[in-house]
Amino acid sequence: MSTGLTDEVLASFASTPDQRLRTILERVVVHLHELVREVEPTVAEWETAIGFLADVGAMCDDTRQEFILLSDVLGVSSLVETLNGSPEGTESTVLGPFHMTSSPARELGDSIDDVGGGRRALVTGRVVDPAGRPVPGAEIDVWQCTEDGFYDVQQPDVQPAGNGRGLFHADDEGRFRFRTVVPAHYPIPTDGPVGALLGTTGRHPYRPAHVHLLVSSPGFETLTTHLFVKGSPYLVQDAVFAVKPDLVVDFVEVDQVTEGMDRPYRHADVEIVLVPASSDVR
Amino acid sequence: MSTGLTDEVLASFASTPDQRLRTILERVVVHLHELVREVEPTVAEWETAIGFLADVGAMCDDTRQEFILLSDVLGVSSLVETLNGSPEGTESTVLGPFHMTSSPARELGDSIDDVGGGRRALVTGRVVDPAGRPVPGAEIDVWQCTEDGFYDVQQPDVQPAGNGRGLFHADDEGRFRFRTVVPAHYPIPTDGPVGALLGTTGRHPYRPAHVHLLVSSPGFETLTTHLFVKGSPYLVQDAVFAVKPDLVVDFVEVDQVTEGMDRPYRHADVEIVLVPASSDVR
Ligand SMILES: [Fe+2]
Ligand SMILES: [Fe+2]
Repeated sequence: MSTGLTDEVLASFASTPDQRLRTILERVVVHLHELVREVEPTVAEWETAIGFLADVGAMCDDTRQEFILLSDVLGVSSLVETLNGSPEGTESTVLGPFHMTSSPARELGDSIDDVGGGRRALVTGRVVDPAGRPVPGAEIDVWQCTEDGFYDVQQPDVQPAGNGRGLFHADDEGRFRFRTVVPAHYPIPTDGPVGALLGTTGRHPYRPAHVHLLVSSPGFETLTTHLFVKGSPYLVQDAVFAVKPDLVVDFVEVDQVTEGMDRPYRHADVEIVLVPASSDVR
Repeated sequence: MSTGLTDEVLASFASTPDQRLRTILERVVVHLHELVREVEPTVAEWETAIGFLADVGAMCDDTRQEFILLSDVLGVSSLVETLNGSPEGTESTVLGPFHMTSSPARELGDSIDDVGGGRRALVTGRVVDPAGRPVPGAEIDVWQCTEDGFYDVQQPDVQPAGNGRGLFHADDEGRFRFRTVVPAHYPIPTDGPVGALLGTTGRHPYRPAHVHLLVSSPGFETLTTHLFVKGSPYLVQDAVFAVKPDLVVDFVEVDQVTEGMDRPYRHADVEIVLVPASSDVR
């Protein structure tokens, strides 16, 4: 079969004023058409695909982003983050579907655990540039699940909004610190079409335990990353393919009363390297 | 950058029990990842894409299927139909987004125009197999817009449900006939994200005038096709890439009182060739 139809579709986008948009749409069309020619879906299979996408759409609301979840389980989110990362900085990884509410502003040293979890932890760190110089005042947006594995938005009747979340600003030496609980490994939401896809394909839905970080400062590329908890299950088979070895951090058990923490607690210390904003921004 | 991540995602689907589903998902992953590597979307662009898909999903309901519309304007629907057609039968083309309600059963010769349009038409035809033998009792599901260019589901306050639609059964000689109005060329719905995409890319939303047909009979492949009205605008630049020259039919003006029609009217006569169901159905 000729590629006449594909050429016709490509030609239809020839007048797109935005060249970047035109390029993206052309590559989308080429790959979609190649996919169809390779797979030769029956009409029933095409209808199943349309129905699946509609189901994914129907699952989206203010507290649920099923398309991000789909992008995540297909490794697309991880690939996009990886391509946008810089070898000079801390590795980036997926945003995930739970960064949909703004984190409450908190003071350095505050706890993000508003429900009194038992596995207490202290996270300390420093935001620096590639030369090791501090990035004073860097904004650190943090979100994580409870020690039972749920984000606040998943349990609006159980957790106060903002639990497990915090918006911090580093001090003059780029240092930050907050109290929390050690997060649990958890299943991504399986009650929607993405969960059904995992079930049908024999895939587990689990993610290793992690804390999300979104770190930004004027003049630097914004970094989306995780701290993964060393020793957590699923570090080798994350359902969303986000683990990078350098992001795995030891939450060391401390059995002393230090740092103003009740003992015992776990302490993770990290260095976050931001890279200067590139001038070749598209 | 290595393709390690892509391999990891492909490996995650290795236990999919259904081999066909596994193949499809593998090709989807390969093309999605190739697309991302080629285009190197910024995180903001990826978020725009996710937001676009969510908007398409939010537009879908019982009377609106925006994902089919998206598939249509990207030429995917036309490609799928074309690949599923048989060179021995009448050419197939897109289902379109308006086949979402069941057509009312009508008798041969009935009118599908329940609102009294002015440009009266008679459609007659015969359903045959590739050898020209009649397919008695073949089911012919018909739907079309009014002469103003709207389907019943688009104007629930103006048109009675089922206007422009009919479910017919051919007679013992495979013949069918129904009265209608000559449909108009019309814009696909532009009030959603797909319409916005057309606008942003400088594309027009028009389709040439057509009548949809879905023809089926036990033992034959179901045929999804159109009759395009010869002389209609947009036959050379259909917004959904569905036109095939053999499907363009002359609606001949008749200025006599014949066939029980008030004069003048237009008469289209078509032969529909169904091909036997293949035994190699997946
Ligand atoms: Fe998470
Ligand atoms: Fe139509």
